[in-house]
Amino acid sequence: MSAPSSLENLIEALRCLPGVGPKSAQRMAYHLLQRDRPGAQRLADALQQTLSVLRHCQRCNTFTETDICERCQSSKRDHGLLCVVETPVDMNMMEQTQAYSGLYYVLMGRVSPLDGVGPRELQLERLLARASDGVVREVILATNFTNEGEVTAHYLSEMLKSRGLRVSRIARGVPVGGELEYVDPGTLAQAMRERKSLAD
Amino acid sequence: MSAPSSLENLIEALRCLPGVGPKSAQRMAYHLLQRDRPGAQRLADALQQTLSVLRHCQRCNTFTETDICERCQSSKRDHGLLCVVETPVDMNMMEQTQAYSGLYYVLMGRVSPLDGVGPRELQLERLLARASDGVVREVILATNFTNEGEVTAHYLSEMLKSRGLRVSRIARGVPVGGELEYVDPGTLAQAMRERKSLAD
Repeated sequence: MSAPSSLENLIEALRCLPGVGPKSAQRMAYHLLQRDRPGAQRLADALQQTLSVLRHCQRCNTFTETDICERCQSSKRDHGLLCVVETPVDMNMMEQTQAYSGLYYVLMGRVSPLDGVGPRELQLERLLARASDGVVREVILATNFTNEGEVTAHYLSEMLKSRGLRVSRIARGVPVGGELEYVDPGTLAQAMRERKSLAD
Repeated sequence: MSAPSSLENLIEALRCLPGVGPKSAQRMAYHLLQRDRPGAQRLADALQQTLSVLRHCQRCNTFTETDICERCQSSKRDHGLLCVVETPVDMNMMEQTQAYSGLYYVLMGRVSPLDGVGPRELQLERLLARASDGVVREVILATNFTNEGEVTAHYLSEMLKSRGLRVSRIARGVPVGGELEYVDPGTLAQAMRERKSLAD
C-alpha cells in the first residue's frame, strides 16, 4: 500500500531537476502538497508558460520570447563585437559584469568528442555565417577554461581566423581577490606565462 | 536587458521548492530548458494532475485520490491499532519498517504555540472522535521526539486517556547500529532511564 499514483508520479517527475534524488523529490512533493499548494500551481503554470513561449533567438541562440532577442535587436549594443559562450547562463554571467556591451553567440554546448558532440552537432557553420555578416569586427571566445571549452575555442579560432576574422580569447589568470596560496598550479603557471608588462 | 519574463517567472516559481535558492532555481530552469523539455512537461503535468486529484483521507488525513484511503479501507490492517504521526512522510517512514499493520491518523502538524498552532488548529477533536469509534483499542503516539512533538504527545496522551483509551508512545533510545560515543547525552540519558530488564 504505497502513496497514491499521482503523488508517486509527481515525486518521479521532480527528479528531472538537477541534483534532486528520490529523497529530496519526496520531500519537495510533500512540502508542496502540505504547505504550498499555491506555489505548486504557480510552478505548474510557469513551466507550461515557459515551455510554450520560450524559444531560441534566431541570431544568438539564447532563450527569448520573440524571433530575435531584445539584445540582438538593440541599437545600444556594439554590433561589431561578438562574444561566443557555451550556454545562456554563461551569457548571463558575462552580462552581470557590465564590462561588455557587444552581442553574443551562444553555442548551446561545446565540442566534446567523447559525448559525440563535434563541430557539426554544434552547427558551427551558423556561427561562421553570423560572424561573417560584415558588421562583426571581432569575435571574442569566452568558452570555459575546461579541456572541452579550450578545444572548442581552439577549433573556433582556427575556423574564424581562416575567414579573415579577428579573434580574441578572454584572459586567464589569478581570480580577482585570489590568494596565490589557494590558486591551483595550472592557473598560476598561466598567470605567470601571460604576465603583462607594467612599463608604459 | 535581463532574461525573458517567462523565464524569470519560472526561476521565481521554482523557489517554492524547499532548499532551492535563487542560484539553484536558475540552474534548474536552464537545465530543464536546455536539456530536458520533456521532463519539464512531465513535471508541469504531474503538478497539475496531483493538485487536481489529490486530497486528504476523511479518516486518517493522509493524501489519497479517494474519499477514504486504501489503507483505511483495507481489511488486512488491524483496525484496533491507531498510530498518530505528524505528517504523511512520517507515516511512510513507519510503513517502510513493515513493523506495523494497524491504521494511522496524520495530525498534519504538531502543537506549536510559538507558531500559533494549538489543539484547535490541529482539530484534535476529530482525532478524539476517530479514536472513540469503539474499534480502536490502542492509540500509539509516534510524533517526533522534538520539543513540539513531545508536547503534542503529552497533550494527546492526557486527552485520550481521559476518554478511557489505552495510549502508548513509541520507544526512545540509542538508534540501532548507534555507538554510544556518537549519541547525544539526552538520548543516552533516556536510554539509561528507560532500560529494559533482561530477566525473564
